[in-house]
This record gives sequence, structure tokens and C-alpha cells, in this order.
Amino acid sequence: MILARVIGHVWSTRKEESLRGLKFLVIQPVTLTYAEDGSAKLTEHGNSLIAADQIGAGESELVMVASGSSARQGLANHNIPIDAIIVGIIDKETFEA
Amino acid sequence: MILARVIGHVWSTRKEESLRGLKFLVIQPVTLTYAEDGSAKLTEHGNSLIAADQIGAGESELVMVASGSSARQGLANHNIPIDAIIVGIIDKETFEA
Amino acid sequence: MILARVIGHVWSTRKEESLRGLKFLVIQPVTLTYAEDGSAKLTEHGNSLIAADQIGAGESELVMVASGSSARQGLANHNIPIDAIIVGIIDKETFEA
Amino acid sequence: MILARVIGHVWSTRKEESLRGLKFLVIQPVTLTYAEDGSAKLTEHGNSLIAADQIGAGESELVMVASGSSARQGLANHNIPIDAIIVGIIDKETFEA
Amino acid sequence: MILARVIGHVWSTRKEESLRGLKFLVIQPVTLTYAEDGSAKLTEHGNSLIAADQIGAGESELVMVASGSSARQGLANHNIPIDAIIVGIIDKETFEA
Repeated sequence: MILARVIGHVWSTRKEESLRGLKFLVIQPVTLTYAEDGSAKLTEHGNSLIAADQIGAGESELVMVASGSSARQGLANHNIPIDAIIVGIIDKETFEA
Repeated sequence: MILARVIGHVWSTRKEESLRGLKFLVIQPVTLTYAEDGSAKLTEHGNSLIAADQIGAGESELVMVASGSSARQGLANHNIPIDAIIVGIIDKETFEA
Repeated sequence: MILARVIGHVWSTRKEESLRGLKFLVIQPVTLTYAEDGSAKLTEHGNSLIAADQIGAGESELVMVASGSSARQGLANHNIPIDAIIVGIIDKETFEA
Repeated sequence: MILARVIGHVWSTRKEESLRGLKFLVIQPVTLTYAEDGSAKLTEHGNSLIAADQIGAGESELVMVASGSSARQGLANHNIPIDAIIVGIIDKETFEA
Repeated sequence: MILARVIGHVWSTRKEESLRGLKFLVIQPVTLTYAEDGSAKLTEHGNSLIAADQIGAGESELVMVASGSSARQGLANHNIPIDAIIVGIIDKETFEA
């Protein structure tokens, strides 16, 4: 899964009918490194993406995102053209020393 | 889904029979960052791609693109060799302050 | 789909039995930008790949390539280990002013 | 499969119901090169990812990670939104001269 | 398919049961360019990966690798967590002038 931060909302009036009612967020992949003192550092890396959200992720929260056909497994309807969904909100404690 | 801008049309006379009648656009992935004053900035990033369009996206519009097997879920015929389709046109207000 | 240029042929004597009879080409992904005068510019970008070809693409032609499980939809036999096929040859006029 | 090193654990309280009970690790892809004396060198390269672990991989171990729909083949339930799992722990001797 | 060179073997004692008996190799993707005199040049590019091998590829040989769900089509058992297999060994003559 992609490790990412939520950085925005997406509004789309004209879209595939099957996507109506879904919430879409802009996520920014981040990469994890450790400073010499062992503290975790998250750095933005690579292109922003759009993911569907069904679990209520909020602005600036860290999330895990499933991609590809696996993303569809998390939707009530497996047969819609969605290739990324947020499957978990990462606890704040995860990257704190 | 990929966040991208429509930057051109594709004309292809010799193609797989199953693709006849579909419209193909060149899309350029963009990444979202924020300036210090909070305004959104979209920067082109990575390779241009080709996506099928069924919702009438126009030149320079921002779109969301589904890839892989998920793209086929958005087509009337799920069994054709298409791996990217435009599933939504992003409202202009999305990235305005 | 990937926007790419055909840059070579691949010869493979020892291969999976199910691939016998298929033609394989080396393709180089390209990205599209526009010069100030509006003319299109195609720049090689990223790794060369190998794609199966069933429509007779020739050296230096621009093509669109479907990847992943979608590639298999374009083959007579959907159950062989192929993850990229050329699905269209792009008309020369596409990127001419 | 991705060649990667385990660099952290992920805690996620709010997540898709179907993911409960799974263990998630942060993995860092590495690339292999050889020094002039033939010794192997592993360098971190690209974005950290999150993978499910069912075989007990530990911090700093090298692992092989299956992605996409293939990842789901390694789970008891193939229909959950997981796109990366650790499928093997690489023996320490692999990259020792 | 990925164009790659075999650069090592992988030993993994603790792995998913379904992977027992398979041979795993480290492959390094390469990209093809041409020198001014028309001779082919292969340059290492991007992350090393791990692929299953069923056709006897050897150290330093060039291979073509199928990824994703397509990789599983080349296995006797389609339902194991493998996302990359070597499907062909590229003839030495391919990239010789």
C-alpha cells in the first residue's frame, strides 16, 4: 500500500455515473527515513494521486492507500473504475519516537 | 487515480479492431503542492500517457484517470485492451483558493 | 496507455512455450511537451520496455501500448504471460502542427 | 517482487474492517549493485511502501514483496483491499560474498 | 515486459509455502539507447527486482520479465503470490550490430 498524506479534496461534477456519491481526496505519497537520533522523517516524494475515501480521512492525516484491482475489493461495488482507495488512517503514534 | 491535464488528441488509423469508436487523449500527470500563501500549484511531473475518454474532457481540463484493470470497468465492453480511462473532470473550483 | 516509439526488435529462442509465434518489439516511452510556437516535442523518458505486436508496427513509429492484465485482452489467448501489447499506431499527423 | 528492507511498523486503529488482524510493516525498496571487489551493495531507492506480513519478518530484515492482485493470492481471503504482502524473508547469505 | 539483466540469486528459507520449489533471481532493468554509430547500448536504470525463473536463465543474461497478474499466467499454479517471472531469454544477437 502507498504511505501518503491527505492534502486536498477533489470536486468533480462531470464524472462516470458509477462514481456518484464517492468522496475523493488528493493524497501525496511520502517516504520514511530516520534521522541520526532515530526520529522518523516523512518526505513528500513522487506524484500526488487521487483516492476514494470511505473511512473519513481528514486533511493532513497519514493514510495507507490500496491501488489497482485491490482497491476495488474495498468497495461495495467491485465493478466500477476506481483504482485507489484509502484503507486505513495511520495512528499518530506510528512515526513518533 | 492519476491527477492529470489533457494536453492533446491521438489519431490512430491502424489499431486493434476492438478500439474503434473510442476517443483517445494525451494526458500529462500533475502533482499538487501549496505555495506559502496557501494557493494550490499544479506542476507537470512524469511521462505523458494516453487515456480513453467517454465523458467529453476538453483540451487543458484537469481530469482523474483510472488505470489498469479498473479502467476496463468503465467501458461497455470489459474485454478490450484499454488500461486508462478518464473517469472525471475536475471542477475548476477544486484548486482555487 | 503508454505513448512510445518503436526502437528495436527482440529475438528470444528460449522462451515460455505459450509465447511462440508472437513478435516482440523494444519500445521507448516518450513524453509530450509543446514549444513556445505550439509545436509538439516528444522526448524519451524512462526505461525501454518490451511489447508484443500484432498490428505490424515498424521501426521508429509512434505507438500506444496497453499494459498489465489489459494487454492480455488483446490476445487470442488471454492466459499467457504477456503484460504489454501495442494496440495502435499513432498517425503521423497527430503531433504535427 | 520488490526487494526491500523492513524499516518500521504501522499502527492503524481506523481501517477497513476486512483488514483487522493483519500486521502491516513499512518497507523500503533497495537496489542491488556490486562493488569492484564483487561485494554486493544494497542502496535504498524510491518510496517507502506498506506491506502486510504473515511470515514474521522483523525490523531491518530483507524481504521479497508481491504487489497488486498477486498479493491477494497470498491471503486467506482473496477479496480484501490489500496490494502488497511480504512473501519471503531473504537469507542473510544471499548478499554476502 | 521488462527488459532486464540477471544479476543474482535469491535464497529464502522462510517464505510462503506456495513458493517452495521456485527459483528466484535478482534482475536489473536496463534501458536501450543507440550510440551515433548505431550500436546498441544497455544502461542499468531503476530498482532491482526479484523474478521467478522457470526457463533456466543464467547470471548476466538479458531476459524479458512479465509482471503483475500476467506473471501468474506463466505458472502451473495461477493462484500463488508471484508478480514477476522471466518469460524469455534474449538472444545475444538482438543487441549486436
